[in-house]
Amino acid sequence: MLKDFVVSEIPDEEELKAKLKEERARLFNSQMKIKEAGLPVMVLFEGWNAAGKGAVIGKVIRNIDPRFFKVATLDQEPSDEDKRYPFLYRYIKEIPEAGKFRFFDTCWMEEIMDGVLQGKIDEETYVNRVKSINVIERQLCDNGYLVVKFFMNISKKEQKERLESLLSSKDTSWRVTDADIKQNKKYDDIREVYDRYLNDTNQSRAPWYIIDARDKKYAELQVLQYLNQGIDTALKNHSLNVPILQNTFPMEKLPKLSDITLSDKFLTDEEYKIQLKALQKELRELGKKVYRKKIPVIIAYEGWDAAGKGGNIKRVTAALDPRDYVVEPIASPEPHEKARHYLWRFWTRLPKTGHITIFDRTWYGRVMVERLEGFCSENDWQRAYNEINEFEKELSDWGAVIIKFWVQIDKDTQLSRFTDRQNTPEKQWKINDEDWRNREKWDQYEVAIDEMIAKTSTTFAPWHVLESVDKKYARIKALQIVIEEIKKALK
Amino acid sequence: MLKDFVVSEIPDEEELKAKLKEERARLFNSQMKIKEAGLPVMVLFEGWNAAGKGAVIGKVIRNIDPRFFKVATLDQEPSDEDKRYPFLYRYIKEIPEAGKFRFFDTCWMEEIMDGVLQGKIDEETYVNRVKSINVIERQLCDNGYLVVKFFMNISKKEQKERLESLLSSKDTSWRVTDADIKQNKKYDDIREVYDRYLNDTNQSRAPWYIIDARDKKYAELQVLQYLNQGIDTALKNHSLNVPILQNTFPMEKLPKLSDITLSDKFLTDEEYKIQLKALQKELRELGKKVYRKKIPVIIAYEGWDAAGKGGNIKRVTAALDPRDYVVEPIASPEPHEKARHYLWRFWTRLPKTGHITIFDRTWYGRVMVERLEGFCSENDWQRAYNEINEFEKELSDWGAVIIKFWVQIDKDTQLSRFTDRQNTPEKQWKINDEDWRNREKWDQYEVAIDEMIAKTSTTFAPWHVLESVDKKYARIKALQIVIEEIKKALK
Repeated sequence: MLKDFVVSEIPDEEELKAKLKEERARLFNSQMKIKEAGLPVMVLFEGWNAAGKGAVIGKVIRNIDPRFFKVATLDQEPSDEDKRYPFLYRYIKEIPEAGKFRFFDTCWMEEIMDGVLQGKIDEETYVNRVKSINVIERQLCDNGYLVVKFFMNISKKEQKERLESLLSSKDTSWRVTDADIKQNKKYDDIREVYDRYLNDTNQSRAPWYIIDARDKKYAELQVLQYLNQGIDTALKNHSLNVPILQNTFPMEKLPKLSDITLSDKFLTDEEYKIQLKALQKELRELGKKVYRKKIPVIIAYEGWDAAGKGGNIKRVTAALDPRDYVVEPIASPEPHEKARHYLWRFWTRLPKTGHITIFDRTWYGRVMVERLEGFCSENDWQRAYNEINEFEKELSDWGAVIIKFWVQIDKDTQLSRFTDRQNTPEKQWKINDEDWRNREKWDQYEVAIDEMIAKTSTTFAPWHVLESVDKKYARIKALQIVIEEIKKALK
Repeated sequence: MLKDFVVSEIPDEEELKAKLKEERARLFNSQMKIKEAGLPVMVLFEGWNAAGKGAVIGKVIRNIDPRFFKVATLDQEPSDEDKRYPFLYRYIKEIPEAGKFRFFDTCWMEEIMDGVLQGKIDEETYVNRVKSINVIERQLCDNGYLVVKFFMNISKKEQKERLESLLSSKDTSWRVTDADIKQNKKYDDIREVYDRYLNDTNQSRAPWYIIDARDKKYAELQVLQYLNQGIDTALKNHSLNVPILQNTFPMEKLPKLSDITLSDKFLTDEEYKIQLKALQKELRELGKKVYRKKIPVIIAYEGWDAAGKGGNIKRVTAALDPRDYVVEPIASPEPHEKARHYLWRFWTRLPKTGHITIFDRTWYGRVMVERLEGFCSENDWQRAYNEINEFEKELSDWGAVIIKFWVQIDKDTQLSRFTDRQNTPEKQWKINDEDWRNREKWDQYEVAIDEMIAKTSTTFAPWHVLESVDKKYARIKALQIVIEEIKKALK
């Protein structure tokens, strides 16, 4: 894309001025439409050093009310802390809320290009990174984001002149780094690397715009034109249904809930006590190894109300060093969470390497409660199975152990536990009207759960059913699975 | 994708049998649903030689009524005739109608892989081919097609054994070609080339399925499972709106129709006669060169009723050798055309290299009459601007000269010509009630035409307005533009 990039004629001063005025006004007027439509706008700036990324961002934001935008400056290398998360993490943290702009002063491209050019990213990693980026950009678009990507392009000669001009004065020479000079020397080779990336990530929904950045005003004009044009298109697309993708993930086949026998799954108190002690001891040791080997562990709990999730989680955490794990109870999303991609609040709660996060309820709310209560559209939850598989694949490729539990009881067991909670003063906080309302929808939930398990039991993140009519049995089984999965990862 | 492909365990005989039965029945039941929904299903089979593509296709089609499917066998090299069209042409010709299956016994992958492996396709061509394929597959999906892509995978060892087994008997040895043996020898290198292509074309809407083809029954099962799953997904997506893409093509800015002065655009009879003669002579010579240099030329006419398209076209064709050009009058699509991608009837009417096709009305009907008469959905025509730009880009990259004329008159001129036609017996066939009805919608048409010109005047295929209140003026201008554009291409 860069190699065959043809510079067009720069309009004369007067024409430039008139067009800039027009496009600036257009952006100014768009901001309220964006606000009203709840459109989140992500603008990615990449490009050559000294191409004027910062300057253009500075000019573009002048047309937007400061309440409606933020600039994310991510052009520095990832910190040691960043490196303990998936590489997408520090960018995803920054995605805008509905109705707002977020300008990225370099995004994932820069990091990957640096890695490739410094020989830190090999071919296989490069291919995987590109895949991850294409997936997340597509997911953002599918979830209503406008993603506009600019590459600020200048020629080798232009770059050289700019660097020399900066170096010629004391006031500006500090702005030129060794990396800048090196980039100019190796310009042609680097262009090949850039070109490949631009081609590899030039998606139909999030295409690249190569900006001829020779002239600052002209560069601003091009950016404004493409941005305004993108906004118009996105406003048209807003709240449109998005095609469901064909599943491409390898799946494990699990039985339907109604085919699971519960009655024979129990332990005596004695069996329980002995096994619990032994397993917790084993898990304690494994927990230390996980920490030392820097493996991230994600344990996800879903299950019927009163199935015994809380007690089950406690038996797992009891074996862990409190510094190494965190339990994340997931309730309905807060406004700032609801205003973003629905997986954002889980992305931002991921464990870092060597740590364990236990989710008490999870991202699967999308295909259960949100589906059944109409908190999202049918298209949203139908799309979610694949989006969730993609999310978990990203985590699995990162090296995470992912353990997903469905804590299963039957309807009668739930009733007796509800009644018990109702009648026992110290347990009454555990039961409310909503629980009873949910119970009325048991059959609809069962359909949704069966579909969820069938569509998200990938080989890299399968569901495990914990038969929990006997809570002791479920706890032992959970510990066994956690131990087994961690052992596999340690191998 | 092939390198890290993990073969899974083949189910035992009994399980295989049961599952095959289930999936076969599922496909059998799907065919009527596909028919009812009007879903066109395109199934692409690619893979290693001797992997059993033909055998699997043979088994799959047994579950479908012969009226509902066809097999396109395209595994031979393109003929000399094929080579005179864009490389996609011979495949696009074969796309299925709504409600029907079309199985491709190799498709565009095979042709490109052969080209790359034989050194006939260089890096740049490869990149462009991949782009074209990604565009057309995405367009097909956007236009309601299900595109399922299978790569039949066997190991080097398995391939060798199969070839040896075929060679060991007189009855089958003829089936093994030199190319097969060569492929087996260079298996590892070829796999790299395949892998790159599979990655490059693994689109979210049309993903690849790698089929473990060791065992024939198991291969059939996998194909049926993915196909059935794809059908379910596609039926859900059917008639869904599709997001409009951001424009990425460089555009030329043309004036609005209302800003075009017509009154000063005229020629005296004398001027006209002299110029016409000279220009037609020049075009005659150029036409010969176009033929010798094998340049394809596409001239597209659109314009108001009674604007003078017919007479204008005649002045162009008068200068051409009848063996070298064809005029394609475009009326409303026939049922078999309506049942396919709306650009199909234009793809199949393309000139071959060295020839000229003049379209009297064009694919732009989509964003004019079809838009205004509601013959397609709003989403369809809004998407069409980009689809048409992509179509024309493909033709331009192929080397075609594309000349698009908008023949412009004002409302009063139309009225006087309509009245004249009405009152002149030998012209009455040229006017009907529909013309009068269209005239009532002049203002709506003007909005649509302005939008069309603004959104499809790409630098590689811009519109040219022919001011035709004076038909003589318009004819001379048309000839001048045709000459100019052909000259550019001959340089």
